[in-house]
Amino acid sequence: MSHLTGKVVIAQGGGPTAVINQSLVGAVLESRKFPQVSQVWGARHGVRGIVAEDFIDLSEATRHNLEQVARTPSSALGSTRDKPDAEYCQRIFSVFRKHEVRYFFYIGGNDSSDTVRIVSEHADREGYELCAVHIPKTVDNDLPINDHCPGYPSAARFVASAFGGINADLMALPGVYIGVVMGRHAGWLTAAAALAHRHEDDGPHLIYVPERVFSIDRYLADIDRIYQRYGRCIVAISEGVWASRDEKGKEIPLAVDLMRKAGHQPETDAHGNIQLSGGVLADELAESVQKGLGIKRVRADTFGYLQRSFPGVVSNVDAREAYEVGEKAVHYACGRGLSGSVVIKRVGAYAVKYDLADVRDVAARTRHMPDEFLNAEGNGVTEAFRAYLRPLLGDDFPHLERLWAPAVTLTDD
Amino acid sequence: MSHLTGKVVIAQGGGPTAVINQSLVGAVLESRKFPQVSQVWGARHGVRGIVAEDFIDLSEATRHNLEQVARTPSSALGSTRDKPDAEYCQRIFSVFRKHEVRYFFYIGGNDSSDTVRIVSEHADREGYELCAVHIPKTVDNDLPINDHCPGYPSAARFVASAFGGINADLMALPGVYIGVVMGRHAGWLTAAAALAHRHEDDGPHLIYVPERVFSIDRYLADIDRIYQRYGRCIVAISEGVWASRDEKGKEIPLAVDLMRKAGHQPETDAHGNIQLSGGVLADELAESVQKGLGIKRVRADTFGYLQRSFPGVVSNVDAREAYEVGEKAVHYACGRGLSGSVVIKRVGAYAVKYDLADVRDVAARTRHMPDEFLNAEGNGVTEAFRAYLRPLLGDDFPHLERLWAPAVTLTDD
Repeated sequence: MSHLTGKVVIAQGGGPTAVINQSLVGAVLESRKFPQVSQVWGARHGVRGIVAEDFIDLSEATRHNLEQVARTPSSALGSTRDKPDAEYCQRIFSVFRKHEVRYFFYIGGNDSSDTVRIVSEHADREGYELCAVHIPKTVDNDLPINDHCPGYPSAARFVASAFGGINADLMALPGVYIGVVMGRHAGWLTAAAALAHRHEDDGPHLIYVPERVFSIDRYLADIDRIYQRYGRCIVAISEGVWASRDEKGKEIPLAVDLMRKAGHQPETDAHGNIQLSGGVLADELAESVQKGLGIKRVRADTFGYLQRSFPGVVSNVDAREAYEVGEKAVHYACGRGLSGSVVIKRVGAYAVKYDLADVRDVAARTRHMPDEFLNAEGNGVTEAFRAYLRPLLGDDFPHLERLWAPAVTLTDD
Repeated sequence: MSHLTGKVVIAQGGGPTAVINQSLVGAVLESRKFPQVSQVWGARHGVRGIVAEDFIDLSEATRHNLEQVARTPSSALGSTRDKPDAEYCQRIFSVFRKHEVRYFFYIGGNDSSDTVRIVSEHADREGYELCAVHIPKTVDNDLPINDHCPGYPSAARFVASAFGGINADLMALPGVYIGVVMGRHAGWLTAAAALAHRHEDDGPHLIYVPERVFSIDRYLADIDRIYQRYGRCIVAISEGVWASRDEKGKEIPLAVDLMRKAGHQPETDAHGNIQLSGGVLADELAESVQKGLGIKRVRADTFGYLQRSFPGVVSNVDAREAYEVGEKAVHYACGRGLSGSVVIKRVGAYAVKYDLADVRDVAARTRHMPDEFLNAEGNGVTEAFRAYLRPLLGDDFPHLERLWAPAVTLTDD
């Protein structure tokens, strides 16, 4: 057991997920068992709550309340997009030192892991003994080292379910459908649409992700080919697809291009992330099909905020693992006195084990989809990707059935 | 038992729902029990499949397959937006007479019930004995006489779940959120967002439906007031809200106004319904908040096609009732030799009974939300509406829990 006596502070950062509260509750319930932990505090709205000394005392949350919160989507403590700089970190330490905080758990994605890295480095420089552990979550699934990230399987289940329903919808009323899915740099969540595919002619027929350069001409040619063959075409596309680069060589998301053309200046957060939501991309992609291919019934949806916090569409595998990464973070910190980032590794088919990685190897890096998960044409995924994702969706992923009955053969009588 | 010996033809029309296949399977399995029914045919893509003699023989579908199809969203037979005129009906009869079809079941909404009316009237005029029964379905919930329509409770569950998740999301990362929900003439589905509400400050805080004239100034004033009070504001709004009328006095949906301003000509279907999907309304409503109120974080989603065919977000009450209206249609037609429209009536709290109404009383009329379900300000629903909808959402509607822990009180030491 770690010799450090003091408080635990736990916080949640970045975009909410359907299971991020599982990690919170896993960490809270587990850390309450350690005798050297004097109190378990939750910081409201991430690091912002730490510097504002805006804490709630989770030592006094009932087990029932916590267990119900675990099943509730989004970040129960509140979240933040703040990215601490040196001065911000100084304020974090003043607060930690003042209140004898010795264990810091931050549940979040790339940006939050970077925050843990900065805080940890600062603690080292200041000679303040602190176990700081990053607990992974992100619907984007783009944290390095991890086989997958908590939050992603449930969001993937939402996306795959949505495309399953859309496929059935388009079989009833044919046309072209374009679904714009979250993912600014990596296509993991968009690619999950492929799991709706069961029969050879099932959609989504085309999947476009930011790992490949997007070409509107190829997109139209692809749709034309599929529509000719099946009389319908379903497209899954990442909000972050890009077709050009700026003068510094940085990829410009197509959505940003379109927003600027329409006279809008997209907003940017503290991490430099451009806000990609809104219907411009979907509307433009739909109109280009109507105008370019002369197809009348073209529909497009932007999945937007529904996909990351939807209650009742949770993978039980995801919920369990999210809880466990919270638990493991406490084992590493309060049990062994370690700092780092909890990572999920796949062992067997299907099982996982947890490990503690150096937070510097996780922070602020993006894990793109590997080549073996994307087809050569750049408009779909491989069987290897399907095999990767299938066990993550959970045990009771909805099964969509086709009606099997013979056509009535009519004879002229 | 009806004396008419012959075939059953069953078809599905209009927009798919999550449970329309329950009605199909209820009707198919029940009609297969009647000895005077020689065969049960399914018409592919509604009335279009009848005139094209495009049938499948549902007498040969296995029970397991049918039971699985019942749990699958969207219209397994395929659907259509065709609205038969006199000549179209003539062709329907030629086909019915040629194949000795004596029982016709059409599962659909307002427009499909109107098709059943035309077909029935034509049969009467031609002296052809035909039992034609309309089986209700519509996510819009706007069929007269019915307490509610199969398909609506599941779509309502999707919308209420989505707003539950969005409310939790906005509590974590505050701002303004606008969700655009299906409903061109009636606000039933949008109003379902209110069921996400549990605590006094829960969203949706504002609900705008086509039953009330929409005013952008009042909308901004409403948001401003809520945002000042809670630091966040969640809005549910129908795609069909309108603020002006054309020269004939017909309401012009705001979305159509905006599309025309942007230089787009919205498409129209055979029933004269204007296509309202697309992100223009949501984007414009978001931008007006950013510009008009100076609030930075404003997000807007159009729920689009996700809300009507989403697998796994089905009300068990809805699934059961949808199956039963299919079963009852067969009892009326094959059992008693009647024609009409099956309607759902609420008896007790909560129970329903089924009845057969004159299809002329159902067809082509829209049931708007009654005044007692809408608040005086025109920006929300009443407790009576909540009480109406609550039992329809099903037994296991997700419960979202808040974290209850005391704030840490800091003393300067």
